[in-house]
Amino acid sequence: MAGTDKSRGTAGIDPTGPAIVLVGPQLGENIGTAARAMLNCGLADLRLVEPRDGWPNEKAVSAASGADLVIEKARVFAGIAEAIADCHHVYAATARPREVVKAVLTPRAAAAEMRAAQARGERVAILFGPERWGLTTDQVSFAGSIIEVPLNPAFASLNLAQAVLIVAYEWRLAADTTPAKFIPTLEQHGGPTELATQDDILKLFEHLERELDESGYLYPPDKRPAMVRNLRSIFLRANLTEPEVRSLRGVVKALVQRRRDLEARGIKPPRRRGS
Amino acid sequence: MAGTDKSRGTAGIDPTGPAIVLVGPQLGENIGTAARAMLNCGLADLRLVEPRDGWPNEKAVSAASGADLVIEKARVFAGIAEAIADCHHVYAATARPREVVKAVLTPRAAAAEMRAAQARGERVAILFGPERWGLTTDQVSFAGSIIEVPLNPAFASLNLAQAVLIVAYEWRLAADTTPAKFIPTLEQHGGPTELATQDDILKLFEHLERELDESGYLYPPDKRPAMVRNLRSIFLRANLTEPEVRSLRGVVKALVQRRRDLEARGIKPPRRRGS
Repeated sequence: MAGTDKSRGTAGIDPTGPAIVLVGPQLGENIGTAARAMLNCGLADLRLVEPRDGWPNEKAVSAASGADLVIEKARVFAGIAEAIADCHHVYAATARPREVVKAVLTPRAAAAEMRAAQARGERVAILFGPERWGLTTDQVSFAGSIIEVPLNPAFASLNLAQAVLIVAYEWRLAADTTPAKFIPTLEQHGGPTELATQDDILKLFEHLERELDESGYLYPPDKRPAMVRNLRSIFLRANLTEPEVRSLRGVVKALVQRRRDLEARGIKPPRRRGS
Repeated sequence: MAGTDKSRGTAGIDPTGPAIVLVGPQLGENIGTAARAMLNCGLADLRLVEPRDGWPNEKAVSAASGADLVIEKARVFAGIAEAIADCHHVYAATARPREVVKAVLTPRAAAAEMRAAQARGERVAILFGPERWGLTTDQVSFAGSIIEVPLNPAFASLNLAQAVLIVAYEWRLAADTTPAKFIPTLEQHGGPTELATQDDILKLFEHLERELDESGYLYPPDKRPAMVRNLRSIFLRANLTEPEVRSLRGVVKALVQRRRDLEARGIKPPRRRGS
């Protein structure tokens, strides 16, 4: 399968990121999905220890859905020792075996450690076991620490690619600066639109409240301040853009248009008292 | 497929957790893998809007790998409006469309909001689009906010089940109390073993250092304090258990045994000076 442009080149990869070591993976599909999850998170160093169905594997290529770069660069090793030879830190992603005393970390805590190691110029490898049974105790013994994903204890078995995704995602997030929450502005006619100024918004409020006074909605007078406050708060919560303020003024105008028309013909509808 | 015991009953599910709404999902396999990811995280309210291949779907059952509970309880709806009718908050998991002004949250920030809503007794729904093209702008318009997973911008397309997993995982983690890092003790003969006391450890050190003095390793005398400090720090870092301390004392004893044997026969090997 030929790579698309987007999967070529550096493709957002951090070459100093951890190596993902799949030990005895069984299905090519899972290797492919794991590769896709890696590239999703900016990782590309895939190492395979004795893949059951050999390598290269066509099913891995198609399951990678464009993460060809990772598949093409994947290296096969005869054993874990060879696969991790150049690394300074080794983690095993597994449910904790009871026969070994090793630190057990959440993926988030492990990610923080890995980023610190990376910053010191040290290489990290993460071992993942075969789909069916995970890493054996002997295989885990290559690792200094264990990563255990805190899941529903009644149903904790993750598929291989899902485990790779969680660990790689936490690694990515440990250095991510995306704002937790932001409200983007509309992009119209080729450029972003601006949030409305408070002057625009106050004019909208005055327009709306003038029409509501006129129609008798803001009644009785002692309730008026609270009614106005509550209405204004709906719109203030919305972080309106300038075009939205203009739309809302159009809406108010449209809603009162029929009464205006009647008034123009000299007909006055009775004023409502309250709603 | 008959459910296993582990997939029956409540199986660690939080019935007040968010509903996962798959809008127009195409492949049964992906519905199944999404169901598995949901149960991994303790979610079970799966809602399907117009699944392409109909429902029930055998491929979904087998891909769910035991998350039968989620598959069996899944409900099919004719439209998004019907699927989310009972919910108070709706999120759309999607790359942000440029035509709408809506808050965009990371999965982590959204999870915190969802937990807060849950604590107030409010129901949350999260919309996920079809595999190939995601949610349309019209479909996104049902949601109050957008969840965007901060991934490698050069390769950001997540498969459906992976997207469900990340969002469900963050929801789970938002209330998780697993220690970030802990060192479990060995379980031997049916019970956990204890960490060694400092008394055990100091006796090990004294034993080791006595033998090293004897063999001439801790030399010259002005270097001795630093050498001792560095050796001790290796073992202190290891959080030794009581059986491990006993093993190490056995190791020291074994290493000096041959010299002891020679000495017992009146033969004194020459003392080494330094190492």
